[in-house]
Amino acid sequence: MIIIGEKINSSIPSMAEAISRRDEAYIQKTAVAQAQNGTHFIDVNAGAFVDAEKELLPWLVKVVQAVTAVPLCLDSPDPAALAAAMACHQGKPLINSISLEKDRYNGVLPLIRGGAAGIIGLCMDDTGIPKTAEQRAAVACRLVDRLITDGVAFADIYLDVMVQPLGTDWLSGKEVLQAVRLLTAEFPGIHLTCGLSNVSFGMPKRQVLNQAFAVALAAYGLDTFFIDPLDHRMISLLLAIQALTGQDEYCSEYIDAYRAGLMK
Amino acid sequence: MIIIGEKINSSIPSMAEAISRRDEAYIQKTAVAQAQNGTHFIDVNAGAFVDAEKELLPWLVKVVQAVTAVPLCLDSPDPAALAAAMACHQGKPLINSISLEKDRYNGVLPLIRGGAAGIIGLCMDDTGIPKTAEQRAAVACRLVDRLITDGVAFADIYLDVMVQPLGTDWLSGKEVLQAVRLLTAEFPGIHLTCGLSNVSFGMPKRQVLNQAFAVALAAYGLDTFFIDPLDHRMISLLLAIQALTGQDEYCSEYIDAYRAGLMK
Repeated sequence: MIIIGEKINSSIPSMAEAISRRDEAYIQKTAVAQAQNGTHFIDVNAGAFVDAEKELLPWLVKVVQAVTAVPLCLDSPDPAALAAAMACHQGKPLINSISLEKDRYNGVLPLIRGGAAGIIGLCMDDTGIPKTAEQRAAVACRLVDRLITDGVAFADIYLDVMVQPLGTDWLSGKEVLQAVRLLTAEFPGIHLTCGLSNVSFGMPKRQVLNQAFAVALAAYGLDTFFIDPLDHRMISLLLAIQALTGQDEYCSEYIDAYRAGLMK
Repeated sequence: MIIIGEKINSSIPSMAEAISRRDEAYIQKTAVAQAQNGTHFIDVNAGAFVDAEKELLPWLVKVVQAVTAVPLCLDSPDPAALAAAMACHQGKPLINSISLEKDRYNGVLPLIRGGAAGIIGLCMDDTGIPKTAEQRAAVACRLVDRLITDGVAFADIYLDVMVQPLGTDWLSGKEVLQAVRLLTAEFPGIHLTCGLSNVSFGMPKRQVLNQAFAVALAAYGLDTFFIDPLDHRMISLLLAIQALTGQDEYCSEYIDAYRAGLMK
């Protein structure tokens, strides 16, 4: 199970404020807290500052890497911002994201060739986000084939199954879960991820939906989670489903987390 | 989604005490509370009183049915106790349980013929509880075939997939989930159930494991849950996964439960 810490994201108002006032201490405190709670990648996103993203994303990389060795997930649709962030990132980052949209594909591909970065691949193309599980899987097959043809290693690909809000399409959760099932069958061992909290946008008790969705996605084989690593309830449920699906030998990770007081 | 309220069970110390002192008020209060919280069947179990079960189970039926019209789940391995309870039950109960164990099968079958009761069928035979998913599914196929041959309606069969503790076999959760997947494929639309809390026996933070397991089982297609209907956290997660798997049109049940203040 791979955890991507989602808290350094300019779509979160308090973080946007911290970025706008260049509050390194606040950002670094958030980074360290995530790193200390089992995060495998720390997402950095400055997308709310469209005009300044190309300067702010590499600045975030430097600020965060000054206090942690955890690799970053560079989060932008803009190849120029990603290139600037890549240029100062130490180690191998994860890039969020590429897709089959023509401009985005051609813009991002040069950054990831030769194993320079892992890549999150959105299951979408220039016609938009697929509606059904089968359509998602078809786009994913084309994207994986193309990435591999273009020299990207299978192990570096993280497919994003494109979660949509239940509030706009009450069947969207079902389609995403079914897409995960199809993709684990089509590509055994592939990394799968998603913006899982999108599912609850506009609904009451979002946490409950997010937690249930995370558990179901994990049970279906999704392995990479954008979450708040300080949300101990979510972490506890993910450790539980990991044990319940036979991915935690003798449940030792579950029991260790309990003994460390990490479970809620 | 079918909820079986598990609280009137003599394996719970406070309930065993209430039964032993014939505390009708306590038992009825527990029954009404479950009935008012969306319970489809109320389990009644007097198995802790082996010598008196044949008297206590029908007594429980009368005590509970005096205050609620919710049908009961008559919970005993003893055909004589079940027959006595059936004799005074009003309406159609669910019997818990039959199995392919020879004596149990022959003892319970007469009680359920002709649609007199629904039946929980344990996926086990005289050789014991199967270890793997495939073995569970094989026993289930034999049990379903035999029940149908003996005149039991498909819709009256609830297969119990035999949950075992993670503490004694750390792969047991995985095998049960896989069994649910096999059985939903083999018998589309069949009722599936289990004693889900068995999975966490002897483990820390049992509630977390039970909640994650319930969500994963529901995501895989299990539809009938032995739970405490007053556990609003569990109910909330089940309502969430019902919505996330496309079983709640326009998420109306989820939203109604939220508006009624039932979600936690």
